[in-house]
Order: sequence, then C-alpha cells, then structure tokens
Amino acid sequence: MTATTPSPLTVLGTGAMGTALARAWLAAGHAVTVWNRTPSRAEPLAADGAVIAPSAADAVSANRLVVVCLLDDPSVGAALDGADLTGRDLVNLTTGTPGDARSRADWATARGARFLDGGIMAVPPMIGHPDSGAYVFYSGSAELFDEHRTALATVAGTEYVGTDPGLAALHDVALLSAMNGMFAGLLHAFALLRGTDVAPRDLAPRLVSWLGAMAPAAHATAERLESGDYTKNVLSSVGMQAAGVPAFLRTAQEQGVSPELLLPYLDLLRRRAADGHGEEDTAGMVELLVRQNPHPLPALPVR
Amino acid sequence: MTATTPSPLTVLGTGAMGTALARAWLAAGHAVTVWNRTPSRAEPLAADGAVIAPSAADAVSANRLVVVCLLDDPSVGAALDGADLTGRDLVNLTTGTPGDARSRADWATARGARFLDGGIMAVPPMIGHPDSGAYVFYSGSAELFDEHRTALATVAGTEYVGTDPGLAALHDVALLSAMNGMFAGLLHAFALLRGTDVAPRDLAPRLVSWLGAMAPAAHATAERLESGDYTKNVLSSVGMQAAGVPAFLRTAQEQGVSPELLLPYLDLLRRRAADGHGEEDTAGMVELLVRQNPHPLPALPVR
Ligand SMILES: NC(=O)c1ccc[n+]([C@@H]2O[C@H](COP(=O)([O-])OP(=O)(O)OC[C@H]3O[C@@H](n4cnc5c(N)ncnc54)[C@H](OP(=O)(O)O)[C@@H]3O)[C@@H](O)[C@H]2O)c1
Ligand SMILES: NC(=O)c1ccc[n+]([C@@H]2O[C@H](COP(=O)([O-])OP(=O)(O)OC[C@H]3O[C@@H](n4cnc5c(N)ncnc54)[C@H](OP(=O)(O)O)[C@@H]3O)[C@@H](O)[C@H]2O)c1
Repeated sequence: MTATTPSPLTVLGTGAMGTALARAWLAAGHAVTVWNRTPSRAEPLAADGAVIAPSAADAVSANRLVVVCLLDDPSVGAALDGADLTGRDLVNLTTGTPGDARSRADWATARGARFLDGGIMAVPPMIGHPDSGAYVFYSGSAELFDEHRTALATVAGTEYVGTDPGLAALHDVALLSAMNGMFAGLLHAFALLRGTDVAPRDLAPRLVSWLGAMAPAAHATAERLESGDYTKNVLSSVGMQAAGVPAFLRTAQEQGVSPELLLPYLDLLRRRAADGHGEEDTAGMVELLVRQNPHPLPALPVR
Repeated sequence: MTATTPSPLTVLGTGAMGTALARAWLAAGHAVTVWNRTPSRAEPLAADGAVIAPSAADAVSANRLVVVCLLDDPSVGAALDGADLTGRDLVNLTTGTPGDARSRADWATARGARFLDGGIMAVPPMIGHPDSGAYVFYSGSAELFDEHRTALATVAGTEYVGTDPGLAALHDVALLSAMNGMFAGLLHAFALLRGTDVAPRDLAPRLVSWLGAMAPAAHATAERLESGDYTKNVLSSVGMQAAGVPAFLRTAQEQGVSPELLLPYLDLLRRRAADGHGEEDTAGMVELLVRQNPHPLPALPVR
C-alpha cells in the first residue's frame, strides 16, 4: 500500500450536516475549504483547520471536488448561481426528490461539471464514525464516484445505486417514508399507554423486538409485487386484517387517543376488502396507491 | 422430573386460529374437546383425536380449562350464553379491546369462573412451534395463569403482563398498531418503485435493515415520555423533520403515488412545529394524540 495524501475538497453549507462532514474530512487529514451563506456559521471550522472562502464561487474554484449540503434544491441553485463549474466534480448531498436530482444533474453537466447525487442515511453525530452504520446512497456519474470513493467513504458508508441521478433520492425517500410510517405507529402505541400503569420503558423493548420480527415481511411483499401474485400461501389476509379494524379504533377511543395516524392504513384495508380482494395478501394494497389505481388519487397538499 | 399427564382442555372455536391451537395441544398429548358454531369446521379435528362436543355448553362442562378463540367479543357472549361457567378456568384468546376484556372478566367472574385474557402475537402456522417466536400476552387471574402455564406454553410463548384483564389487549393492540404503521410505510416505499428500474426485491433488504436500525429509537422515545423532557440532546428535531415534508410529498407526486398513508404523520410534524415545538424531539408529538391535547380529537369513525 502506498501512502496517498487525502485529496483537498470544498464543502458548501455548514449547517448541522455540512459542519459534521467538514469536521470528519478535516479529522482524516483532508484540506477543506468551506463556505456558508451566513459566514458566522462557518467560522468555528477555522479552528479545525478549514479555509473559509468569502464566496461560493471562490470555494468552488478552490477544489475540483465540491460537496454541497444545503437546505434544499433551490438553495443549491442560489448558492452556485455565479460559480464557474467547469471541470468540477459536484457531489450534492442536499435532500431533494428524484426529479430535483435529475434536473440538477442536467444543469451541472451543461455547466461543464460531473455530478453525483447523494442521500444521507444518518444524523450528524454519526458522520465520520464508521461503526455508526451511517451511509449515503449515491447515484449519477460512476466515474466521479469511483474517483472519489475513498474520500466519500471517510465520512460514511457508500451505496452506489446507479447512473440515473434520481436513484439516490428515490432510495433515500423510500427508506425514510417507511421509517416515518414506523415512527407513526410507535407514536400511536405510546399514546395508548397514557393514563395506564404500563410504563413506556416497559413497552419499548417489546415494540422493538416485535417490529424487528415483523420487518422481514418486506421480503415476502417484494416477492409478491414482482410476481403480481397476491393470492398464494396467504397467511394474513386483507379480509382478516380488515375484520380487526374495529378493535384498533375502539381501543384508541377507550384510551382517549386520536386514531389519525392509523386511519389511512385501516381505511385502505377496508377499501381493498370491499373491492373483492379480501382473500389476498396485503401486498396487493400497493395497487390502490399507484397512478393506475382504480380510485382517483386524492389531491396532493404539496405546499 | 416426574412425568405428568397433560391436562385435558376445551377449545371453543375452530376457525384458523382455534384449529391451530387445538392441533398443537393434541400433538402434545392433551385430551381436547372442541366446539364450533358451524360443526363441519370442527370435524376435521376428530381425525387428530379431538372430541367434538354437540354444544358449547357441553364443551364447557367437559373440562375445567376452557380456551375461547372466536371472531370477536360479541361472539364469545353468544357462544357461552347457555353454558354453566361455575368452577371453570376461562382463557379468552379472542381479539378485543382492553374494555372488552375487563367487562368479559367481570361477566365470567360473576358466573363463577376464573378469567384470563390473551392476545396472540402470531399467525396460525406459528402455533405449536416454539422456535417460531409466537407468543401470547396474558392478563387477569394470576392463579389461573400459574396453574395452566405449562399447557399454555405448549402452543406459544407466554408473557403475563398483569392482573388487570385489559392489559393483554392493550399490549396486543399497541404492538399491532406499531406494526400497521410500519406496514403502511413499507407499502408507500414499494409504491414509489412502480414504473422505475428498482426491483422491490432489491429494495427489501435495505428497508429491512434500515427499519431494524431505526426501531430502537423507541427506547429513547420511551425515556423522553417518562421524563417529559423533549428538549435535551435532540438529534432529529420536529422542525428539521417538518422541513423535510415537501421532499416526501413531491417525491410521491413525481412517482404518481398517493401520499395518503404518510399524510397524517407529516401533518402532525407540521402542527407540532407550528405550535412552537420545532426544536424538540418528535416524541413530544404524542401530546397531540392524547385526550388532553390542545387540539380537539377528530371524530372517530368507529363502525
Ligand atoms: N441534519 C440531519 O440529520 C440530516 C440527515 C440527512 C440529510 N440531511 C440533509 O442535509 C441538508 C442540510 O441539512 P442540515 O441539517 O445541515 O440543515 P441546517 O442545519 O438547517 O443547514 C442548512 C444550510 O443550508 C443553508 N441555506 C439555506 N437556504 C439557503 C439559500 N437560499 N442559499 C444558500 N444557503 C442556504 C444554510 O445557510 P445559513 O446558515 O446561511 O442559513 C445552512 O448552511 C438538508 O438537505 C438535509 O435534508 C440532514
Ligand atoms: N388468524 C390469525 O392470524 C390470528 C392472529 C392473532 C389473533 N387472532 C384472533 O383469533 C380469533 C379467531 O381468529 P381466526 O383466524 O380463527 O378467525 P376465523 O378463522 O374467521 O374463525 C372465526 C371463528 O369465530 C366463530 N364465530 C364467529 N361468529 C360467531 C358467533 N356469533 N358465535 C359463535 N361463533 C362465532 C366462527 O365460527 P363459524 O365457523 O361457525 O363461523 C369461527 O370459529 C380472532 O379474535 C382473531 O383476531 C387470529
């Protein structure tokens, strides 16, 4: 093994996540140039050895590898507005949609840069700690990824999911969506304990092991979605689940808990059963969520 | 160890679950008397050695230990209407609410029986297979539980959670509610893949390990709920989560997926942030779900 000097790089955005990233690279010996719209939020990094650039354009011109971690996609456009991206390798770790990533990739490519999008599966304290389980989904330029893979792996595990720049965001949002569902279920479960003698601390380990035991049902769901067969070897049918709905609603009512977090799923069970799919596996309910579904999609309250 | 003859028992209800229970006890050498409203559904058990009773009253009089596994609480009342419960040990494995279990316990006690309620955390094929992870929450008469614990443990693991007969149902519904939330999140995640090149089979392992890594957040949530402190050491604040809401909604829109399963949780994040709790941990959102919450509870569509 030949010793290589860690490559210098730029970090745009020193919010909670950008700061954690910059610190991890600095700690690993990279020369790091940082920029932040509000300069006072970047200054603490000088003590760790970072160079503070006076403008985003200056920060971009300082290094070939430019990591962007800003609030949202519009802030990326705003920050890079006057910068010369020619020959730059842009790694965008700003959360957005698959569509955001694809148009940002086109935009960057048109300006002479290579582009890699990333979705960070971690909170800032996990960054730079290989044992934390932190990782980043990457998609877009495979060349860029291969060239900078070592530097990228310094801050978190790397999962390259394809050349379509939208794929990292798709994976990111899919996992976080599933997590939000689980967190919603957990909140409801804990709410049911209010005013009872059951301590949240006593329920928590039971919840954790139950969810851990049930999560692998996702494998069987995936198989059914690929085969399109929702009827073979059904263990827990839509009809049986739908029959259980009143017990959930009445328990919530007895405990004085709003059922709002559970209602859409319970309602979906009932609709699927009413559509004549009571004997099927619940995987088939995906059909009611997608564009081709037999019911019109509800209006999207996108703000 | 002295060899003991397994105690004889009665099973009322030979639906999918009652049949699995009766089979597991028969296989373990128990003498089992069964009854089912529709006799033809009980008959197959005769081949396994079960005695088919002509009425529920006969089945109850045959054995001291009477296990009930019917559709819902009203069917328990209907089935046991004419039976003499004096001196019986009633174990009710019918799904219901905590309130159902408490009034059924009073009802049974007034008729001279001891009463134990149970919530089955398993599907029928797991019953009688100790390695399957199947278990039952029990609550109510501790004496009954202690006396019949060995017989009960034959069909599934046992978790006795207290003398209040409602506690088994509370635990059961809490765990299943959390699971339904997780399953809702998984359905949304898989729906996002429709029309993309990402195979459900490839996403599934990522979902399973991500959910497994995130489920232990329930421990921290429990600690916060017990201390009432939602502000210390916040890693992922309500405000930050609320800021991420548009990315979820826009991704769903781009992919042609109804956001219905995620909306209530995303909406709760926004309401909690709007209430001035943006810096807090999401555990505090429980306050918006419980009776004492600052917003009126939505109407409950209990059917
Ligand atoms: N924190 C996490 O746990 C986490 C986890 C996974 C992914 N992420 C993602 O990482 C990204 C950054 O998150 P964060 O936690 O670091 O957020 P943050 O602490 O709120 O920082 C936001 C950053 O964006 C900048 N910014 C906002 N609007 C801007 C604009 N119009 N022009 C230029 N700069 C602008 C801010 O600059 P000012 O200081 O001038 O306001 C700041 O540097 C987000 O996309 C987030 O979704 C975060
Ligand atoms: N299956 C599971 O995966 C599972 C898991 C956990 C808990 N459980 C619980 O176990 C219980 C039984 O479930 P299952 O899967 O066995 O359901 P099932 O196959 O639908 O059987 C329902 C049973 O209830 C009887 N029944 C319904 N209405 C009745 C009435 N008015 N009077 C008398 N008997 C009546 C049925 O008798 P007929 O044959 O005459 O209709 C049948 O024996 C339910 O409370 C369920 O929630 C089931």
